[in-house]
Amino acid sequence: MQFHHYGYVSGDPRVQPAAGVGIDRAEELPDEVDVLIVGSGPAGMVAAAQLAQFPGIVTRIVERRPGRLEIGQADGIQARSVETFQAFGFAERIIAEAYRITEMAFWKPDPENPRNIHRAAVTPDDPSGISEFPHLIVNQARVLDYFAEYAHNSPGRITPDYGWEFDGLDIAQPSADGTVPEYPVTVTLERVTGVGVGAGDASHAAPLEGARTGERRTLRAKYVVGADGARSRVRESIGASHVGAQSFHAWGVMDTLAVTDFPDIRTKCSIQSEAGNILLIPREGGHLFRMYVDLGEVPEDDHGAVRRTTLDEIIAKANDILHPYTLDVRNVPWHSVYEVGHRVTDRFDDVPLDEQGSRTPRVFITGDACHTHSAKAGQGMNVSMQDGWNIGWKLGHVLDGRADPALLETYHAERHVVAKDLIEFDREWSKLMATKPEDLGDPTELEEFYMRTFEFPAGFMTQYEASMIVGGAGHQGLATGFPIGKRFKSAPVERVCDGNPVQLGHHHRADGRWRIYAFADAAAPAAHGTALADWANWLREASDSPLVAFTPDGADIDSVFDVKVVFQQPHAAVDLGRVPTTFLPKNGPFGLTDYEKVYAIDPQHDIFELRGIDRSGAVVVVRPDQYVANVLPLGAVDELAGFFRGVVLPR
Amino acid sequence: MQFHHYGYVSGDPRVQPAAGVGIDRAEELPDEVDVLIVGSGPAGMVAAAQLAQFPGIVTRIVERRPGRLEIGQADGIQARSVETFQAFGFAERIIAEAYRITEMAFWKPDPENPRNIHRAAVTPDDPSGISEFPHLIVNQARVLDYFAEYAHNSPGRITPDYGWEFDGLDIAQPSADGTVPEYPVTVTLERVTGVGVGAGDASHAAPLEGARTGERRTLRAKYVVGADGARSRVRESIGASHVGAQSFHAWGVMDTLAVTDFPDIRTKCSIQSEAGNILLIPREGGHLFRMYVDLGEVPEDDHGAVRRTTLDEIIAKANDILHPYTLDVRNVPWHSVYEVGHRVTDRFDDVPLDEQGSRTPRVFITGDACHTHSAKAGQGMNVSMQDGWNIGWKLGHVLDGRADPALLETYHAERHVVAKDLIEFDREWSKLMATKPEDLGDPTELEEFYMRTFEFPAGFMTQYEASMIVGGAGHQGLATGFPIGKRFKSAPVERVCDGNPVQLGHHHRADGRWRIYAFADAAAPAAHGTALADWANWLREASDSPLVAFTPDGADIDSVFDVKVVFQQPHAAVDLGRVPTTFLPKNGPFGLTDYEKVYAIDPQHDIFELRGIDRSGAVVVVRPDQYVANVLPLGAVDELAGFFRGVVLPR
Ligand SMILES: Cc1cc2nc3c(=O)[nH]c(=O)nc-3n(C[C@H](O)[C@H](O)[C@H](O)COP(=O)(O)OP(=O)(O)OC[C@H]3O[C@@H](n4cnc5c(N)ncnc54)[C@H](O)[C@@H]3O)c2cc1C
Ligand SMILES: Cc1cc2nc3c(=O)[nH]c(=O)nc-3n(C[C@H](O)[C@H](O)[C@H](O)COP(=O)(O)OP(=O)(O)OC[C@H]3O[C@@H](n4cnc5c(N)ncnc54)[C@H](O)[C@@H]3O)c2cc1C
Repeated sequence: MQFHHYGYVSGDPRVQPAAGVGIDRAEELPDEVDVLIVGSGPAGMVAAAQLAQFPGIVTRIVERRPGRLEIGQADGIQARSVETFQAFGFAERIIAEAYRITEMAFWKPDPENPRNIHRAAVTPDDPSGISEFPHLIVNQARVLDYFAEYAHNSPGRITPDYGWEFDGLDIAQPSADGTVPEYPVTVTLERVTGVGVGAGDASHAAPLEGARTGERRTLRAKYVVGADGARSRVRESIGASHVGAQSFHAWGVMDTLAVTDFPDIRTKCSIQSEAGNILLIPREGGHLFRMYVDLGEVPEDDHGAVRRTTLDEIIAKANDILHPYTLDVRNVPWHSVYEVGHRVTDRFDDVPLDEQGSRTPRVFITGDACHTHSAKAGQGMNVSMQDGWNIGWKLGHVLDGRADPALLETYHAERHVVAKDLIEFDREWSKLMATKPEDLGDPTELEEFYMRTFEFPAGFMTQYEASMIVGGAGHQGLATGFPIGKRFKSAPVERVCDGNPVQLGHHHRADGRWRIYAFADAAAPAAHGTALADWANWLREASDSPLVAFTPDGADIDSVFDVKVVFQQPHAAVDLGRVPTTFLPKNGPFGLTDYEKVYAIDPQHDIFELRGIDRSGAVVVVRPDQYVANVLPLGAVDELAGFFRGVVLPR
Repeated sequence: MQFHHYGYVSGDPRVQPAAGVGIDRAEELPDEVDVLIVGSGPAGMVAAAQLAQFPGIVTRIVERRPGRLEIGQADGIQARSVETFQAFGFAERIIAEAYRITEMAFWKPDPENPRNIHRAAVTPDDPSGISEFPHLIVNQARVLDYFAEYAHNSPGRITPDYGWEFDGLDIAQPSADGTVPEYPVTVTLERVTGVGVGAGDASHAAPLEGARTGERRTLRAKYVVGADGARSRVRESIGASHVGAQSFHAWGVMDTLAVTDFPDIRTKCSIQSEAGNILLIPREGGHLFRMYVDLGEVPEDDHGAVRRTTLDEIIAKANDILHPYTLDVRNVPWHSVYEVGHRVTDRFDDVPLDEQGSRTPRVFITGDACHTHSAKAGQGMNVSMQDGWNIGWKLGHVLDGRADPALLETYHAERHVVAKDLIEFDREWSKLMATKPEDLGDPTELEEFYMRTFEFPAGFMTQYEASMIVGGAGHQGLATGFPIGKRFKSAPVERVCDGNPVQLGHHHRADGRWRIYAFADAAAPAAHGTALADWANWLREASDSPLVAFTPDGADIDSVFDVKVVFQQPHAAVDLGRVPTTFLPKNGPFGLTDYEKVYAIDPQHDIFELRGIDRSGAVVVVRPDQYVANVLPLGAVDELAGFFRGVVLPR
């Protein structure tokens, strides 16, 4: 955490000074906003938290609930999400209060006595150490609280406007001469009261409407982000179609406090018995657990019958499945019948597929609004957060004048593929979990699928294709452990200035900046005459260097690009006095040196080995959302300049 | 973190439900209080935070400042203090914002050119891995903030009463028939305004008095804790004498933002040059650093002259010492001339030394009020916090009816020795640091002393002597790695219920409870017939078992003693169904099982090996402040019962 350099910070350094429109933020919703986010679930809150780092932009987030979410909904937090929390500054706090999954147990009918279940297998949860962060379980409400805190403590000082329901929108068409109004989207909202704070609507359930007040208003926006969940009206308003199986699967979900002799009650379990299936998720705090009790496929002519399944029925069924163990339920703070199909929307913005590229999208949909699926792989909240981050930084860039609006077209292009893959994965996993053990080809098929595909539900299979913001794989060989298009996997290094062991990736906060990592050639640090020094001097001085071309006048030199170096030597062998000054910029009102850009290997865990980095050095470019954008040789300065000319606008 | 078992917790689980006197805490200072703490520095705040866990007790803390400390004072946080922060629930947060010391550099005159300094040595800061926690630097104000948060979020809901100055006190003597009034201490306070929030008074400096309002009041207390710093009036009011060298040493201290070519500006350094000495402490946030510039011994006839040393003079001297490097100071948010002698008060309570044991002490002094010394070993705040914790849990026990008032006599007995040792250590270290390099016997004497004595300043040399709360060393051989009287050094284990790798000691929160760790014999878990099972069954059932004798009726069985077991097997080999139920108590309104008391070894770091625990098992008793109170064989149930009969009162 870096602070004090703009003046002494006496209180919590997580509270950044307000800036721009955050200084005097209007209490009431203004008539014109740059970005209107609809819905304060995971997708909307991440987008808001990211945009709060762009205090030049007027961002508002409307939510029909009267206040924060209090209970229920999702709870599975994949490691990729914890990495994201780290970027938003709250990983260590949420880890401290969450349940951590280290193993998963598989219970099946006991072959000796199939009426009983027995523990058939236990598999480690992260067999390959895919992230330095754990796999967690914690209620969605707490995740939202932390993002809300970040949004509020960021320079833009964003807080949700509660009690407003999105009703519809209208996008102005270009006039005859092709001009578009500055605020082309007109949005209609209605004041609502009394929407349950623990409620929400899964895709098939009836919407829980609040008392309508009749108080309506319109406002105009440059862009709208629909993060309004499975029954999204924003999706409807842009005429996108939600495609997918009409068939729904229902689960009785209950957050439970109970006494039981089932020995794995604090372990994540898949329980398959002759009486049905349970997915058991231990929860934060050491006592609560969640059970998803399988209620089967919902027939077309069900007409909501499944939704009338009572809590007592769910509990009875759970006891049946757990036989010979029993569940003596003492308290159920939340339960629901959670029904979803596998659906994905055909497009994630307002531009019809056959018109893509012809105009700037103005309305985006994110999260459950554009993809729904079962809860079993614990994906909904996680994928939604990545949607929100993706659109958040892109809107920030465009509205801040850093990038061309064409950047916004990459949102659909990138996230639609992810959603389709997710639905595919979830369909397979759900089918497997619902299959009777005796019908499986191989009795270990389930746990093997789980182990084999682990990387997917952990959130690390996303690999964006080449685009204006993702380079080609031409030089991938220089850093094989940083696959282009995948998220930058952190590794240990040592900070030169103080010898502190740190994770290189953890300096990458969700501040909207690009990271450029220069992995040095083998030469000792020198101001001139090494491949690294030549690159660094070019970056500092050349007119086509992205630093020179794209950093606004008067701004800190690292305000758009945060450039770091990692030397191949241990930290004691790196003489700070010989490190090119590109990596020791002087910033802020006092012109103080930033010492946190110069790293050395951790001799016990050499990052060059761990990440397959060529000893001749390499440049790794990372996007604001932590995805690797490019890998280049130190010598390829023209390619680097060219890459950024395709992304960032000169200032 | 355990929660939800008393009902669903929707918000931050760190906020515990208010209880007892915390439910309707009076805004204004009441006329009668159980404990009055004077001063909200580290000693007072820790005592308040601990007492906030005893919501049956009316505790108030008065402070003459108008609000929180904002700047300045101490910043060195030894690992023992970070362990303490863990117990108070904020270690992970303060670590995230603090500077971490991993090395110390020693700069000396360059033998080639003694006018210049050169780096003579670099030593690791924690060569022996003495704690799983780091050595940190962070401003005292933030430490106080976190304790304030804990005190406020605890059941007792304690917050400081600002703007009150302690004026004096009077202790009622027993009447002719020996009775003592219920509230024997009458305290006079005065309302003050305008004391600087960044200010304070080191022992020799003029007190910074606020504007007196003349508004005075008295209140009556059962006990008073003087945590009012070096010029303590509470100390004065009990007639204790502050003994020690009259000679003072002065340092110009400045918290600095500067540009410099000194390469170790982000490393803790001892700098000895021909022009004088500097202790350099990098600070949190990556830019700020503190320099202690030696201003030498203060002559008897100085009459405050040294205090008139200007900031410019300090800066000029620093530049002289750093030659050939330069320091271009851009901003100094805080500076002070910090003068202290080495002093310790003869007694830490109101009972004269020759009357000790004859009556219950009513007034205690803690922290700088009873010991002052140089800032160079970074001890002041740390030792003060341990004082506060020590008196805090003891007052909690006595006022809660758990222990006899005789317990309070151990406060002086335990902490006075620590203070004396501290002064001794500091005297030696200060002398060494002030010695001209050419006058040292061996040029490496300084760094060798630092390395050799590392355990002391890290806070781990404290070892309490045998007393009513510290057993004899008779069975120490059963657990050589848990020295009786020293703090319980945590070690990794695995939680059986979920296989999570955890630190055994981290479950020990500052909740006022004793911990009893049963290290099992080698047998597999069984409900009967093993040494462990016999011990566990005795503990659950025998009339002289501390659990049976001392747990109040209707309270959770672990409300006074938290009993845990560690098996010698890996977690997968421990069948929860066979673990004695002593370790799986059912608690709270729903009678839910507590699964967080059963542990297994971590096969990679076997706690039995790491802590020298006998394979026949052992019982380790740990006090509420994390000090080991006793080590006993599993079979020695009479000794265990006897030990607690000497401490805890039957309910
Ligand atoms: C009842 C329920 C139970 C669930 N259970 C599980 C589960 O057990 N496990 C699991 O993994 N996932 C579960 N989910 C799904 C998971 O919560 C979602 O995948 C995740 O929250 C998606 O995030 P989101 O931001 O896209 O949408 P949401 O979290 O649904 O957020 C949408 C937000 O928009 C608001 N909103 C909706 N319409 C409007 C409007 N017109 N105007 C203004 N605001 C509006 C809603 O109030 C809500 O706050 C559940 C969801 C629901 C609703
Ligand atoms: C100006 C200053 C600079 C220091 N610099 C350093 C340093 O550089 N490095 C270092 O290691 N240590 C330093 N210290 C010492 C370090 O801060 C102390 O060792 C530590 O704070 C001791 O904690 P304490 O709680 O015992 O006392 P303190 O932190 O001194 O707290 C005492 C509190 O009591 C209040 N108080 C005093 N008298 C009254 C009264 N009559 N009525 C009500 N309230 C009262 C004070 O306002 C204060 O808040 C400094 C102390 C001071 C005062």
